[in-house]
Amino acid sequence: MWLNEPLAFGTAVGEAVAPPGVRLSAAAAPLTRAVGVIDEFGQRRTIHIPAERDLTIYVDRRELVTLMTLGAQPEWLVLGYLRNQRLVQSPDQIESITVDWEVGAAAVRTRTGLADLEARTAQRVVTTGCGQGSVFGSLMDDVERIRLSPTAQLRQSQLYAILRTVREQDSVYKQAGSVHGCALFQGGELLLFVEDVGRHNAVDAIAGWMWLQTPAIQRGDDKVFYTTGRLTSEMIIKAAQMGVPIVVSRSGITQMGLEVAERLGLCAIGRATHTRFLCYTHPQRLVWDTSLP
Amino acid sequence: MWLNEPLAFGTAVGEAVAPPGVRLSAAAAPLTRAVGVIDEFGQRRTIHIPAERDLTIYVDRRELVTLMTLGAQPEWLVLGYLRNQRLVQSPDQIESITVDWEVGAAAVRTRTGLADLEARTAQRVVTTGCGQGSVFGSLMDDVERIRLSPTAQLRQSQLYAILRTVREQDSVYKQAGSVHGCALFQGGELLLFVEDVGRHNAVDAIAGWMWLQTPAIQRGDDKVFYTTGRLTSEMIIKAAQMGVPIVVSRSGITQMGLEVAERLGLCAIGRATHTRFLCYTHPQRLVWDTSLP
Repeated sequence: MWLNEPLAFGTAVGEAVAPPGVRLSAAAAPLTRAVGVIDEFGQRRTIHIPAERDLTIYVDRRELVTLMTLGAQPEWLVLGYLRNQRLVQSPDQIESITVDWEVGAAAVRTRTGLADLEARTAQRVVTTGCGQGSVFGSLMDDVERIRLSPTAQLRQSQLYAILRTVREQDSVYKQAGSVHGCALFQGGELLLFVEDVGRHNAVDAIAGWMWLQTPAIQRGDDKVFYTTGRLTSEMIIKAAQMGVPIVVSRSGITQMGLEVAERLGLCAIGRATHTRFLCYTHPQRLVWDTSLP
Repeated sequence: MWLNEPLAFGTAVGEAVAPPGVRLSAAAAPLTRAVGVIDEFGQRRTIHIPAERDLTIYVDRRELVTLMTLGAQPEWLVLGYLRNQRLVQSPDQIESITVDWEVGAAAVRTRTGLADLEARTAQRVVTTGCGQGSVFGSLMDDVERIRLSPTAQLRQSQLYAILRTVREQDSVYKQAGSVHGCALFQGGELLLFVEDVGRHNAVDAIAGWMWLQTPAIQRGDDKVFYTTGRLTSEMIIKAAQMGVPIVVSRSGITQMGLEVAERLGLCAIGRATHTRFLCYTHPQRLVWDTSLP
């Protein structure tokens, strides 16, 4: 969801379309819901839980998939989903994305159709996530082709600025819990913070949003990707596909996440809270410029 | 993975096959891996991370799907996956499940083939999980048909026994983090505790294991399902498909999870740690028999 600075930044995307000209709806829906519960004392209480709705993606009228999402930024989610599933190679291929919450549908219109969509969506790989995430085609397909900036680095002081910014974010999580957050930073500066019930939706929304920005923002090599979720292989791969060479997580890393990050030359940092963190891979990208007590 | 009491219980399944007679391999693989990291002080440290491996399921030589898993109990995972995807209606349909970690393959041999497997795996629904979990067919397909025991109850004191047992479990999580745990209880007594990098794998393994037990264990109506993960709709549905009317989570609940639990008559309890918890749905199943300070 949109918060603080990025809000003004992001809501502009709908109207003043950055190149390329993808027409997007601006579907809105409540992000939390108040529900009555009974606590351990048998007392009735009202709490908030995150919204969760299904969104069926239709590409040129052909049903592709149904996502379950918080629904904060469905248009970016759909664009980023198509991007991260490698079903679309460039935003130029997309003419418009129209989300209608009344029917829970996202209508994607392409300019020239998507080549061999049938074939590309045939193979299923059910990935870790916290669930059984689905990636069309082989996870590792494009990994070998990815070249991350060899020189990109992050200073420890910038990392701490990132952790402080995330900590101080107003968020659905603070109000309702049960959502994952992802954020895109340039150095220590926040560009975008997105939450979703599915952490893959959050990173997909960021990937979609990036495609709608100026070339300077679309470039990943000076960016840092933050996620509250675990660094699974598909999380690492999605960051790498955005060209982002440094990934930070509040959580840990899985074995495949570690192996893929190692192979890609991506610096994976986990267990990052306050001043603590663990650098799992490619520590040469991290500059220890802060003296800790 | 197998821990404490359930260990002896479970490892027997491979040899002394409980009715029905599904032949299972007993593929074993290391569950954690030691890796070198650099901490915030620039100091090298060795930590453990959970193993993560891909397992491709072949049903009668036909490739179905690839799961990413910790690999603790792959045979039960495969059986439970087929069960929870509603691709198999009874374990009697399965002749054998043979897992070979050398090639990352699980060969499922059915007795008479699975009817319209093609058709049943055509529709994809990408669900919340923490990722984008994949369920074949409509999530809600079978929900209307599920009838949970109207009388099943859990005492608060039993709930606290469950939380204490989970807290005291030896686990991959305590050693390496980054895994989800699920457990099956009868009243307050632990039957099975399973961990996996994917929390859906953990519940699937439990569903598979249940199908290999005596009728008394297969029955869900006197069982309680525990998960460290969020109560998403598919988590609730999987518990309900096992006939389990009470679900407990250390985490929260999503809106669809709440709605499905409400509709199913399932008692969903979340934020459960030590003496704290929130009862989201059907509190009539919970007996407050403990006076808290």
